[in-house]
Amino acid sequence: MNLPSTSLLLTDLYQLTMLQGYVEHGMEEQATFEFFVRKLPPARNFLLAAGLEQALCFLQDLRFTSEELEWVSGCGLFRPSLVDYLEQLRFTGDVHAMPEGTVCFPDEPIVRITAPLPQAQLVETRLINLLHFQTLIASKAARSVLVAPGKLLVDFGLRRTHGAEAGLLAARASYLAGFSGTSAVQAAPLFGIPIYGTMAHSYIQAHEDEAAAFERFAYANPDNVVFLIDTYDTEAGAAKVVSLATRLRQKGIPINGVRLDSGDLGDHARKVRRILDEGGLTDTTIFASGNLDESIVQQLVATHAPIDGFGIGTRMDVSADAPYLDCAYKLEAYGGKARRKRSEGKATWPGCKQVFRRYGPDGRMRGDILTLEDDPQEGEPLIQPVMRAGKRLHTPASLAALRERARTQLARLPDGLRTLEKGPDYPVQVSPALRDLAKAVDEHRL
Amino acid sequence: MNLPSTSLLLTDLYQLTMLQGYVEHGMEEQATFEFFVRKLPPARNFLLAAGLEQALCFLQDLRFTSEELEWVSGCGLFRPSLVDYLEQLRFTGDVHAMPEGTVCFPDEPIVRITAPLPQAQLVETRLINLLHFQTLIASKAARSVLVAPGKLLVDFGLRRTHGAEAGLLAARASYLAGFSGTSAVQAAPLFGIPIYGTMAHSYIQAHEDEAAAFERFAYANPDNVVFLIDTYDTEAGAAKVVSLATRLRQKGIPINGVRLDSGDLGDHARKVRRILDEGGLTDTTIFASGNLDESIVQQLVATHAPIDGFGIGTRMDVSADAPYLDCAYKLEAYGGKARRKRSEGKATWPGCKQVFRRYGPDGRMRGDILTLEDDPQEGEPLIQPVMRAGKRLHTPASLAALRERARTQLARLPDGLRTLEKGPDYPVQVSPALRDLAKAVDEHRL
Repeated sequence: MNLPSTSLLLTDLYQLTMLQGYVEHGMEEQATFEFFVRKLPPARNFLLAAGLEQALCFLQDLRFTSEELEWVSGCGLFRPSLVDYLEQLRFTGDVHAMPEGTVCFPDEPIVRITAPLPQAQLVETRLINLLHFQTLIASKAARSVLVAPGKLLVDFGLRRTHGAEAGLLAARASYLAGFSGTSAVQAAPLFGIPIYGTMAHSYIQAHEDEAAAFERFAYANPDNVVFLIDTYDTEAGAAKVVSLATRLRQKGIPINGVRLDSGDLGDHARKVRRILDEGGLTDTTIFASGNLDESIVQQLVATHAPIDGFGIGTRMDVSADAPYLDCAYKLEAYGGKARRKRSEGKATWPGCKQVFRRYGPDGRMRGDILTLEDDPQEGEPLIQPVMRAGKRLHTPASLAALRERARTQLARLPDGLRTLEKGPDYPVQVSPALRDLAKAVDEHRL
Repeated sequence: MNLPSTSLLLTDLYQLTMLQGYVEHGMEEQATFEFFVRKLPPARNFLLAAGLEQALCFLQDLRFTSEELEWVSGCGLFRPSLVDYLEQLRFTGDVHAMPEGTVCFPDEPIVRITAPLPQAQLVETRLINLLHFQTLIASKAARSVLVAPGKLLVDFGLRRTHGAEAGLLAARASYLAGFSGTSAVQAAPLFGIPIYGTMAHSYIQAHEDEAAAFERFAYANPDNVVFLIDTYDTEAGAAKVVSLATRLRQKGIPINGVRLDSGDLGDHARKVRRILDEGGLTDTTIFASGNLDESIVQQLVATHAPIDGFGIGTRMDVSADAPYLDCAYKLEAYGGKARRKRSEGKATWPGCKQVFRRYGPDGRMRGDILTLEDDPQEGEPLIQPVMRAGKRLHTPASLAALRERARTQLARLPDGLRTLEKGPDYPVQVSPALRDLAKAVDEHRL
């Protein structure tokens, strides 16, 4: 199964009106655009790049369907020359990018597109739409991963994500960042992500009796027995689980866990742990959910609440504390000349850029240099070619490999950036070569 | 064109594990679930219901494809009895709902589903996913509509919406709430929404000269001439527009407007208005964009900035101040018996409910009564049957009609709720009949 493909009309109208101008005036020279984040949200210390795989699929498959062309042709806004152009349109450009799972910072290009101007322009809206969201969610999810080492973390957010695609991509981005899995079933066939889930309150409520509901569930799903115990009274629910355990054990059915979803989770977890342990269910885990985010998880972990795993939903999947990134996709060169936007408060660095990362003797990240592609520096170059002339250069990396990259990147974060609170700014130095180019562009008033 | 349909695997795993339990134990009696919002986000005074149309399409077309069934069958989690059940599954239930565009409040059911338990359960995740997001965005967009009467309001958010579907549904929800249109092209063929847009900074930057970029654009798009004038220097840009006007006029091309996208928008608008007026371009409108939300728009309107229209993007389309609603889809009755969840802080009102709304002599909303369906009260009943036995009862209302409903509903809001700040709580009374039922359910400890 593939992520459902989207229409090329999923774009901003101005892309098409600009294309009409480009096409009529033969402006088809090579253009370079870079996608980057302008600044970090408050209380965030880093970003985790994500979404490249979907962006590359989008570019590779890019073509207008006859239905879409018919609409463009008939909508009354465009000339036949544009329709003809769109009919032939394929993406024939180059892409350079940071691998997904790379820790990154403001002003650092995450993806660079070099292609004939109309192509590079047209893809702007959807590229941002794909890269922004997954980078947003991976960056948010990484915070839970950092504060809950060794815990089972499951994405529970599908129902309140912003639409269908957000649900699937949030499952992917959070798994990439280190989550154990998701409740979203489709993420299994689509991305190979482990899925989790057992029962809702409605299941308990539909039965006359909570204990009977538990027992029926265990017979129907003997390999996956996790009981939701807070529908009426959490500790009474735990006691019912203990009562049931002997009968289930006789049938060879272990009780894998219980889930708490309301009230003071730390307090309930302690009481429930005691009830389970005294009932001999020392192997039965406690899983907690209900309006969780990384701050609450951190607090529960810090106070040694006996919770083995967390279901983290809405607040992660909408990135509730920072539901968008101030990101952009900007023209940095056209027809061999560097370009720069100088709008107030929104000026950009011109040219094709590279980021070099230096590490300390402890293996931790020590600082980045933002410079031009042709100005090599000491350190690891983060941006690599991934597509040439519209063709991918490598077999797509497995999600497992990207997840491993995220894990090693997060392990190399300086301590000051691993906290949920705002840490010291990570040093990203702008090279003299890049500053000189910006000055030159300004002075020539291009 | 239709909204791309989604897989039935776009659901939480627990829906399927519960279904396995329901199916094995023949629990297929009628269940009633209601979708409602538990509480308003801070600083919000009301909600605007939206998303019903997509929810009804989802229910009407509900069936598992052979590919999906194959996955369920082969994933190792489910028994053949469940696969057989899913293969036959269609939605055969009833739906009652508030029309889209209805102003509503916490605890008031927005949609009610009555169907055999497995059906009503399975649809939970996607129903919430559809109803939550559009209600979230319509409620957010209504705030801009209230503070900017007579202004052109355009949704500009597609690039930073959370994925593709969010972009399309945000365009729909904001249009329903009173926006004039959207930049998202696909919203035109899909929903018939007017689309807007002309050029980005990259268009200007790709030219050696800003004035030449303007002129070329006008020849390529003579019916839709709006120049973005802030790429280098806003007032200098306005002066170039004036210089160009005579030449374009001779070719019969009017300059419809200019767009400002950075800096102090009110200040620039005043200066630009003066430059345009002095240059004889009194009919050329000023359109503003750039990190706008309803608070900034309100301030610009209150200070009489000469701005004719606003492009409102990211902050509306992710509902930045409140990126999710605390909403739920809860079992209220099963097998003819009312049910109620009593989890701490999450208790629900049982039974099939209705909302009656009373209006004052001035036509403004005066208060609602939340009661049981069979307990008629004075006032307008807000919840109506819309689907019976899986079939829609009416031809789908046009988006124009729903937009008109939203307009009249917003016009009937009490003054205290029309402000961006938190106003007095709107009175929603819980009827004695409903309180009695809740007590009875509790006492029988169902």
